[in-house]
Amino acid sequence: MTTLKSRRRFLKTSAGVSLLAGAVPATRAHDASNPLARSAYGARSSYDTSVRVSDLGSNCSFASDCNTLTPLQDLHGIITPPPLHFNSAHGAFPPDINPDEFTLYIHGLVDRPLKFSLAELKRLPFISRIMHIECEANYPHTHQDTTPQHTHGKVACSEWTGVPISVIMDECGAQPAGTWTVCEGMDRDLHSKSIPMASLKEGILAYAQNGAPLMPHQGYPLRIVIPGAGGFSNVKWLHRIKVTEEPYLTPSERFSQKFSVKSIITFPSGGQQMQGRGYYTISGMAWSGRGAIKTVDVSVDGGNTWLQAKLEDPVLPTAITRFSLEWFWDGSETVIKSRALDDAGNIQPTPEEVAQKLNASVDLVKRNRVRSPDTQWNMIFPWRIKTDGSVHNDLWT
Amino acid sequence: MTTLKSRRRFLKTSAGVSLLAGAVPATRAHDASNPLARSAYGARSSYDTSVRVSDLGSNCSFASDCNTLTPLQDLHGIITPPPLHFNSAHGAFPPDINPDEFTLYIHGLVDRPLKFSLAELKRLPFISRIMHIECEANYPHTHQDTTPQHTHGKVACSEWTGVPISVIMDECGAQPAGTWTVCEGMDRDLHSKSIPMASLKEGILAYAQNGAPLMPHQGYPLRIVIPGAGGFSNVKWLHRIKVTEEPYLTPSERFSQKFSVKSIITFPSGGQQMQGRGYYTISGMAWSGRGAIKTVDVSVDGGNTWLQAKLEDPVLPTAITRFSLEWFWDGSETVIKSRALDDAGNIQPTPEEVAQKLNASVDLVKRNRVRSPDTQWNMIFPWRIKTDGSVHNDLWT
Repeated sequence: MTTLKSRRRFLKTSAGVSLLAGAVPATRAHDASNPLARSAYGARSSYDTSVRVSDLGSNCSFASDCNTLTPLQDLHGIITPPPLHFNSAHGAFPPDINPDEFTLYIHGLVDRPLKFSLAELKRLPFISRIMHIECEANYPHTHQDTTPQHTHGKVACSEWTGVPISVIMDECGAQPAGTWTVCEGMDRDLHSKSIPMASLKEGILAYAQNGAPLMPHQGYPLRIVIPGAGGFSNVKWLHRIKVTEEPYLTPSERFSQKFSVKSIITFPSGGQQMQGRGYYTISGMAWSGRGAIKTVDVSVDGGNTWLQAKLEDPVLPTAITRFSLEWFWDGSETVIKSRALDDAGNIQPTPEEVAQKLNASVDLVKRNRVRSPDTQWNMIFPWRIKTDGSVHNDLWT
Repeated sequence: MTTLKSRRRFLKTSAGVSLLAGAVPATRAHDASNPLARSAYGARSSYDTSVRVSDLGSNCSFASDCNTLTPLQDLHGIITPPPLHFNSAHGAFPPDINPDEFTLYIHGLVDRPLKFSLAELKRLPFISRIMHIECEANYPHTHQDTTPQHTHGKVACSEWTGVPISVIMDECGAQPAGTWTVCEGMDRDLHSKSIPMASLKEGILAYAQNGAPLMPHQGYPLRIVIPGAGGFSNVKWLHRIKVTEEPYLTPSERFSQKFSVKSIITFPSGGQQMQGRGYYTISGMAWSGRGAIKTVDVSVDGGNTWLQAKLEDPVLPTAITRFSLEWFWDGSETVIKSRALDDAGNIQPTPEEVAQKLNASVDLVKRNRVRSPDTQWNMIFPWRIKTDGSVHNDLWT
């Protein structure tokens, strides 16, 4: 592997030093219990207790290979706070990477193998986009999945900033034969994924999330974000991209598939408690890996009739869109559902429609035991509101 | 003051109880030093040391009435992380408000004086918008203001979610004679502001910022956010709005004035260090209280020639817009500047243009000692890059 070449367009130096040290930091450690430190770096209210939970229940204390879930029922708008962004299992504790010693390598079928320090990457052209990331396994697994966090909590939406991967590939002169890549992270197992070059070049090498450096669980200091692709493509702690002729792992459609349209009502939702008959504003989130949300319909009578929800600006492609509907609840038992349509014409199906299409039982498709080859689990999801005001996952009834 | 009336449209109960308790919180305390707690609520990397600093220098240790500033030079995109959002002086320590005991009162010239618990407010129609907040005093005060944090750090941009104040005023039946309001916060001094009803009704009662409840320094649990208005209108820890015929304080244009267009280059910027001649991507932020950013021009030769910068999506009204420009620095001393234009036709002036308009010296207008009656300080701002790669505030030369 050679070091940086003079032909590279943007960078001049080859040393991986920290070129652009910030001017401010006076201290490294912030004691959250110190009120002065809280002025320097704010802490949330002691009354704000929203947390990620494990998807494996109380037996998984975040110490083993389990996932943590976004508390969708506690969120507003479209932006997910990074401390509450779901994460997939790569061991409980992310690698502790010193950004001054970090190097990204690009090699394989390229004219100019390159390496980049983080400071060098930040001198390249960048883009910022508000985009969601969704895990393939984002669906209710059992009737014990009672809240939106449990049923749909493997999705989150952030403003990601980074270098377009197409720019990187132009810099290193990726060869036409290089139709695949191997992208490797620095986690415990050097987790790697084979991603088609065509998909990878739609993505960015993200070094910032919601304005700040990535949090460790989100891949600090560098990760891949490909709009609309499954979370498994978005390799975290990325330190190596090898351009190859063939995939290193079993080739699969899933690496170039875009996830389809989906939505979930977050208020009222499972685990919450209605306070008697009266006016409420139903609130929820919709997203599609294949475009922008066009409309969201909400049913408050179990799917017999549908009303068009209000969408909040901005409505962005491959990002969460917030919807709402004003509703008078008369106090009787009912089921509420949402159904999103994206601007590519995709619409959420009912379990019955999926079952018919796949020639399988409704129960099997609900549990994702029989899967559609062209989309992930994205069925219309129901919450049942009982006369006592309690709200329950109604998928299994 | 009466309690909730049956005529109110959205809420049925009058008790200020917490209607919609979240389903998840298992624990209240999060020990940031505990790795398991970090899985439940993420912490940033120990290498990410960006902090707010005081605007009064080292003599103000956040313990007295000083302001803290957003570290603009460390940020990417348009979203400001709430822990780094500037805040204005209301004593160093924000009030510690229990949301279950919180009540908002609306009274004065209204047909139906109302009170709302936080849970009741969350049943009302809401909007979510990405908007900036800027303090009136957001300009460089001395040549010791070396970084963007010091020169322009009293601005930040968040996704705010809350109830349109127009909805609240409809609910309580604000009377035509009520052309003014007094909005009172729960901080140490019960800080209050007289705001014209017409301005206030453009705003929202925000209970969420970037998806989560407000942080204490940002007004937890409730604050006003009026798009494009000066930060002083956006009363924090809001607990009372009285509708009045006249302002309680001296009437002033400033309470209905929208701030004009402004921009700042954040990379390269004062305090940073260039790493020799070569390619760089200039990055910066532009915003206007009077509309959306239309174009940003950047000069790399002290203002002799200008190049149009690239704007990142989304470009939103009364929100920060990120711009960038690819640049080859030849290593010679130069001055870089940005100049933003909004879609209402406002453009940033030079200090010389402001001085001529106000018939005052350039020095006095630079120092804001002579002020324009129709806009805040929003002049084109220069950074000087020296041959050794150091970057400096060039306003005063």
